[in-house]
Amino acid sequence: EEPPQPTPGDPYAEDPPRHPALKINTLKPFNAEPPSELLTENYLTPSQLFFKRNHLPVPVVDPATYRLHVRDARGRTLSLSLRDLKRNFPKHKVTATVQCAGNRRAEMNAIQNTNRLGWGIGAISTACWGGARLRDVLVHAGYKPSDEGHVSFEGLDKEPNGTVYGASIPFKKAMDPEGDVLLAYEMNGEELPRDHGFPLRVVVPGIVGARNVKWLAQISVGPEESKSHWQQKDYKGFSPAVTWDTVDFSKAPAIQELPVQSAITEPCPNASITPGELTVKGYAWSGGGQSIVRVDVSLDGGKSWHVAKLAGEEQAPGRAWAWKLWQLEAIVPPGTKELNIVCKAVDSNYNQQPDKVGPIWNILGVLNNAWHQVSVSVGED
Amino acid sequence: EEPPQPTPGDPYAEDPPRHPALKINTLKPFNAEPPSELLTENYLTPSQLFFKRNHLPVPVVDPATYRLHVRDARGRTLSLSLRDLKRNFPKHKVTATVQCAGNRRAEMNAIQNTNRLGWGIGAISTACWGGARLRDVLVHAGYKPSDEGHVSFEGLDKEPNGTVYGASIPFKKAMDPEGDVLLAYEMNGEELPRDHGFPLRVVVPGIVGARNVKWLAQISVGPEESKSHWQQKDYKGFSPAVTWDTVDFSKAPAIQELPVQSAITEPCPNASITPGELTVKGYAWSGGGQSIVRVDVSLDGGKSWHVAKLAGEEQAPGRAWAWKLWQLEAIVPPGTKELNIVCKAVDSNYNQQPDKVGPIWNILGVLNNAWHQVSVSVGED
Ligand SMILES: [Mo]
Ligand SMILES: [Mo]
Repeated sequence: EEPPQPTPGDPYAEDPPRHPALKINTLKPFNAEPPSELLTENYLTPSQLFFKRNHLPVPVVDPATYRLHVRDARGRTLSLSLRDLKRNFPKHKVTATVQCAGNRRAEMNAIQNTNRLGWGIGAISTACWGGARLRDVLVHAGYKPSDEGHVSFEGLDKEPNGTVYGASIPFKKAMDPEGDVLLAYEMNGEELPRDHGFPLRVVVPGIVGARNVKWLAQISVGPEESKSHWQQKDYKGFSPAVTWDTVDFSKAPAIQELPVQSAITEPCPNASITPGELTVKGYAWSGGGQSIVRVDVSLDGGKSWHVAKLAGEEQAPGRAWAWKLWQLEAIVPPGTKELNIVCKAVDSNYNQQPDKVGPIWNILGVLNNAWHQVSVSVGED
Repeated sequence: EEPPQPTPGDPYAEDPPRHPALKINTLKPFNAEPPSELLTENYLTPSQLFFKRNHLPVPVVDPATYRLHVRDARGRTLSLSLRDLKRNFPKHKVTATVQCAGNRRAEMNAIQNTNRLGWGIGAISTACWGGARLRDVLVHAGYKPSDEGHVSFEGLDKEPNGTVYGASIPFKKAMDPEGDVLLAYEMNGEELPRDHGFPLRVVVPGIVGARNVKWLAQISVGPEESKSHWQQKDYKGFSPAVTWDTVDFSKAPAIQELPVQSAITEPCPNASITPGELTVKGYAWSGGGQSIVRVDVSLDGGKSWHVAKLAGEEQAPGRAWAWKLWQLEAIVPPGTKELNIVCKAVDSNYNQQPDKVGPIWNILGVLNNAWHQVSVSVGED
């Protein structure tokens, strides 16, 4: 099979090749997720299968001439090469899950279409990230832990009009010795792939994907959040009562830490199973370093519950950045016609997931963490 | 009316007088909450109306001879008088909401009785607390911020067999300069009332009431949580699937930070209202210093929503220890027969409340933060 020929002048012509198993949401920009059943095959998502969420074309970067620009505390601009970042700052590794705010938007679109990317349950993945601590770089740039405000990031990815991707995080998170924010040049023990920000990206454990800026060009610190579209006019949560006619973006905080989440990766929706042993699998995660303490699974739509077995890296309290995979071994009695499988997770603050999607639906289609439901039919043995 | 005569030998004979408006749950020990409509009359709950949750008789303490015992980092016991605490440590004031883990248990009992205190929505109140920072006292006792483990508290309240009330919090919370944990001797600008721990109690903002030990006798630091019944065999969250036959207390973490919560204080359940203007009022709060960013209110059982107006003290991000009161002005159209009023809050992590009580029901009847619902009938104008 011939690869598609690039259109002349196509800004996406230089995008990298991708794994054929990915379920593509949009090709340009490239937005794709792994199929559910591959998502929980590995605790660390293979980088090729890790969900891709690009807002713009993937920039072509020469690592030899690449420079990170950091506005320092005295208003000067530091210019750091990749070599500087690797040599002058200790390398730190963090296993962290990244989730797009739009994960599971398809379930919201099914209620009322938001006309935005219809992510399934796969806009979430986990990797071991390696890089310099943002904190160390900020200290090198003359900032003090007692400083305040926000740390803004700009990417090398550009709109045709020159607008670059941007986002910010609170200075306190950036500077927290236990916040584990990285300027990552490594993903799962290898050089960062182009789709994930080569040669350098921000990894902000516990915080929505949108702040984990890829192809990092510039860092600055100031009293206000990033002025970018993506910080100011997107990635915020609204009431189901808010419409495009009534929305006031200044009224909702930019999403940072994400709420407790879980989903069923096996069996697949509408699968046909047989009576007898059934394995139900999924993932569970919570933002802000909260750990997952329990996952409840129901086979009857939420009437009765079972406690799933959790697996995954043990991380320190308040620094549980990575998901837990879970599994339930159940017996499906003969004569069963269908199962309505439901999961819900509980985190270390004992926050739980809301039951239904409708009451948390919002115009941006973000933050869907309602119970995940999968119906399957049961055939003859 | 004559006050009831104390029974000879009654360990509760020395309990203080209480406000007559309180709704009593149990008299001995005294457990009582303010009526809903009084709960949100004031942002700071008047101390007399503040919910009372006593596990044991109220101890009689002479403030002149009272001593707080602190095991120091070298294993010695420091003995601090009230005067020492007031003179040797800076006084710090914090407005913080305290909520019992059993708040709203009545709604759980209605589904399946837990045979535990049937709290309504009033086992939550807010005060301005004044006292020494626990952190300052721990530093005085030789502890360092880098130390680890748990800080255990014992009260002066005793069971007949001599067992004293006890609980613990993580050392990290106790030592956090922004954790605002107090050894409080003041409540709403006055001496701590006897029911609230006179002469000294712990106030742990953002953390379940049970760790806010009253009538504080002793503080110690160690690698493990408090061995007390209340830390080990109570105040933990379980799946609805767990029964008294299958419960394993070692499997669930002790409740510390509480999940997002809200309730409707006006109108009252089963009230009869008239068409026209209706004011709906309530409170919303989240543990762990998370602020309340929104309260959604429905008048039709959750089909459509309105955004309520929030009021309350502005507190720093991550230190939003106090509740928000909320209000919705609505118009009830003529011809309406009944309203099913529902509220749900969203906190700064965008965590939301679960929809229904059943799926979060648990044998201890704790952590009920499902949507609160109040049905009222609408009469003729
Ligand atoms: Mo995202
Ligand atoms: Mo409590």
